[in-house]
Amino acid sequence: MNTEHPKPTADTSTEMSKTSVPKGVVNRLSLYLRELQIIERLGEKTVSSSLLGDRLGFTDAQVRKDLGYFGQFGQPGVGYPCAELIKAIRVILGIDREWTVAMVGVGNLGRALLGYKGFSAQGFRVVAAFDNMAAKIGTYCEGVPIYDIAELGKIVQEQQVVLGLIAVPASDAQTIADELVASGVAGILNFAPVTLKLPDNVSLVGVDLATELESLCFSVANRPNPR
Amino acid sequence: MNTEHPKPTADTSTEMSKTSVPKGVVNRLSLYLRELQIIERLGEKTVSSSLLGDRLGFTDAQVRKDLGYFGQFGQPGVGYPCAELIKAIRVILGIDREWTVAMVGVGNLGRALLGYKGFSAQGFRVVAAFDNMAAKIGTYCEGVPIYDIAELGKIVQEQQVVLGLIAVPASDAQTIADELVASGVAGILNFAPVTLKLPDNVSLVGVDLATELESLCFSVANRPNPR
Repeated sequence: MNTEHPKPTADTSTEMSKTSVPKGVVNRLSLYLRELQIIERLGEKTVSSSLLGDRLGFTDAQVRKDLGYFGQFGQPGVGYPCAELIKAIRVILGIDREWTVAMVGVGNLGRALLGYKGFSAQGFRVVAAFDNMAAKIGTYCEGVPIYDIAELGKIVQEQQVVLGLIAVPASDAQTIADELVASGVAGILNFAPVTLKLPDNVSLVGVDLATELESLCFSVANRPNPR
Repeated sequence: MNTEHPKPTADTSTEMSKTSVPKGVVNRLSLYLRELQIIERLGEKTVSSSLLGDRLGFTDAQVRKDLGYFGQFGQPGVGYPCAELIKAIRVILGIDREWTVAMVGVGNLGRALLGYKGFSAQGFRVVAAFDNMAAKIGTYCEGVPIYDIAELGKIVQEQQVVLGLIAVPASDAQTIADELVASGVAGILNFAPVTLKLPDNVSLVGVDLATELESLCFSVANRPNPR
């Protein structure tokens, strides 16, 4: 979002904007990937853009346009070969490799995230979790060892952690982010309800749950006849 | 996202697009609101667009442009009166009223969301939670009563629930969404990793945690020299 030496910019979208691909397209790739995996498990070898789109509520034109950002897939009249397209999307998203992840904060949200099957299914390996509560340190949550947050720098470096997930209170989030950056992570997924300032060379995606709920309210409030 | 009788559309953004205000602007309003509340608590009566922007990593021009969607606030050279702008943003977002919310699914994620202080702070009142696990039914989580999911329709109607939060496994999410819609909710915030199909008159915001993490990977993978 910003730099250590703030460089104001009119572009306030995420780091994603550094590529020419809109974030919406990237998010839809994730959805296509999950549907393709389901379709493949059902035994289908190919899928048309219209069927893939229909399962997700998108038009076939949207599917073709989104995939068109990244090359030519499939053949007219034949559709996309599921296995190939799954592989291609995983390469595009960068999840054809394993990413080592650390979770900071093992409260309810941290626990929920550690238990989230979707992460390991897509190749994210959570190697360490951190908390400052003595009773939790040295225990495991969902098979992940919980370390003293004082050891964050040491363990993130030892374990070559690439992505940090922040699920600590808002007041601690920037300090944790700074420690993660100093320890060499390349990206941070922030669940704390606060905007983090990170150097330009570290990617940031923020998930503010109250913001999402407010966005829903805005949508409901600006309709005719909300309940 | 879609309708009971699917009407394909090239516009795949959320329901938000029905108004002329981009979702990014709405999300930034939430951030401005939180910063303004902090600034006000620090004892400041007014704030300039550049100070407000700087705290969030946005330019002053961006702040003025975002607020400009909704009218004329503040005065050149004086800045924005905090209290007035807070009130105005709460009206714009539709959170100047209390929203009754129901949480469906009281696993780790549901518990995390129920414990999330940001919700009650912004006027969301969670009146009921639902689960299908007998041991949970009749108990409370964060002060919220947990009901049998079989009673969802009855209680959502009795309590005049307007917003439903879905934190159940992906395989159950569409069924739950259909029940919430049938019971009269106006909006759904979906945390299950699946795309829901809802009628046009119900708002939907989806938060797919693996998608967010994949979006972060895409950003990291498309940088020079990721770790």
